[in-house]
Amino acid sequence: MEYRRFGDKYIVRLERGDEIIESIKKLAIEEKIRLGRVTGIGAVNRAKFGLFKMEEKEYYSKEFEGDMEIINLSGNISEMNGEVYIHLHIALGDDSLRVIGGHLNYAYISATGEIIIDLIEGRVDRKYSDEIGINLLDLNK
Amino acid sequence: MEYRRFGDKYIVRLERGDEIIESIKKLAIEEKIRLGRVTGIGAVNRAKFGLFKMEEKEYYSKEFEGDMEIINLSGNISEMNGEVYIHLHIALGDDSLRVIGGHLNYAYISATGEIIIDLIEGRVDRKYSDEIGINLLDLNK
Amino acid sequence: MEYRRFGDKYIVRLERGDEIIESIKKLAIEEKIRLGRVTGIGAVNRAKFGLFKMEEKEYYSKEFEGDMEIINLSGNISEMNGEVYIHLHIALGDDSLRVIGGHLNYAYISATGEIIIDLIEGRVDRKYSDEIGINLLDLNK
Repeated sequence: MEYRRFGDKYIVRLERGDEIIESIKKLAIEEKIRLGRVTGIGAVNRAKFGLFKMEEKEYYSKEFEGDMEIINLSGNISEMNGEVYIHLHIALGDDSLRVIGGHLNYAYISATGEIIIDLIEGRVDRKYSDEIGINLLDLNK
Repeated sequence: MEYRRFGDKYIVRLERGDEIIESIKKLAIEEKIRLGRVTGIGAVNRAKFGLFKMEEKEYYSKEFEGDMEIINLSGNISEMNGEVYIHLHIALGDDSLRVIGGHLNYAYISATGEIIIDLIEGRVDRKYSDEIGINLLDLNK
Repeated sequence: MEYRRFGDKYIVRLERGDEIIESIKKLAIEEKIRLGRVTGIGAVNRAKFGLFKMEEKEYYSKEFEGDMEIINLSGNISEMNGEVYIHLHIALGDDSLRVIGGHLNYAYISATGEIIIDLIEGRVDRKYSDEIGINLLDLNK
């Protein structure tokens, strides 16, 4: 991973083998980013992502392998229990050019990852919701 | 819906049952946002979206139900006839992890909606185009 | 194409027949944008996009025709050999409402294109990588 800050934005290049969530978490810790937006494109060769099933309150996730373009990476950086929290959704396209996607567990870069992070001044925490079953943004503090 | 402004950005948390377009419209009215960009992720359980057919000059839209991740929500806030105008496209993934999407009519949040709005200083109007059949951005004023 | 600058953002309206990459390149040259992020929605009726195959170090691309919504357009503006370099990925939906997408070669607007460009102060170059087979962002300069 290489990155550089330009004003309130970080331009990030992920390299072959970099895992996306780990890399962004590392950057956020190094740069003390507490709140941000993540957008990006690139290509991966292994990724796990899924769907949250409301009734079971569980993620149904699946791993995919092979050359896949990152059609779109979207999400945010916040905090939970004083630690960096990365929440990303991903859309991937394989050689059928059909798009698959979901809540991202992990994804390994093949060719490159071109990520842009908006640094937002402020802090937003998360709190686990028993009712919903996931960690929700907490904007009341 | 909960939201908070940080500089030129709003962090928005939509709650179970919130309709996305209505919620963003309400926020834009309350906060007097005349121009903005909308990005987001989350999960819905009912959504209608479609494709504009150029020849018929009509939207072909369909409603979907069930647990669906918002893979990506993209669009903008502008004005038309002095009122807030929300234009959004959505990409959704179900438990097949395949992605469907289109021009958004409505979508109801199931687990959460995590929206980031860029407040843009300025105003852009829309005007109906007889030739195209939709409301186009009007950047000439 | 019509566009207008608002602070660090450009609101762009592409018109029927405009090709997306050419149009953004033209705008970047006219406005001397050396670094930026591109996001957008809209509709096209002809587009070519594909997947980079790592082993062959070649893009496998295909052209599609017919009414298609731009579910999401994502990418960036950088430089290579002193010239503007546009790198975009696209997600499109047809009347099946299923989404296809990949690395964008070209796309022709049918109804409209609503693009927002973030102007980023700074410069980022690209360099061809023999190892990977594509032009990578070079953040070391």
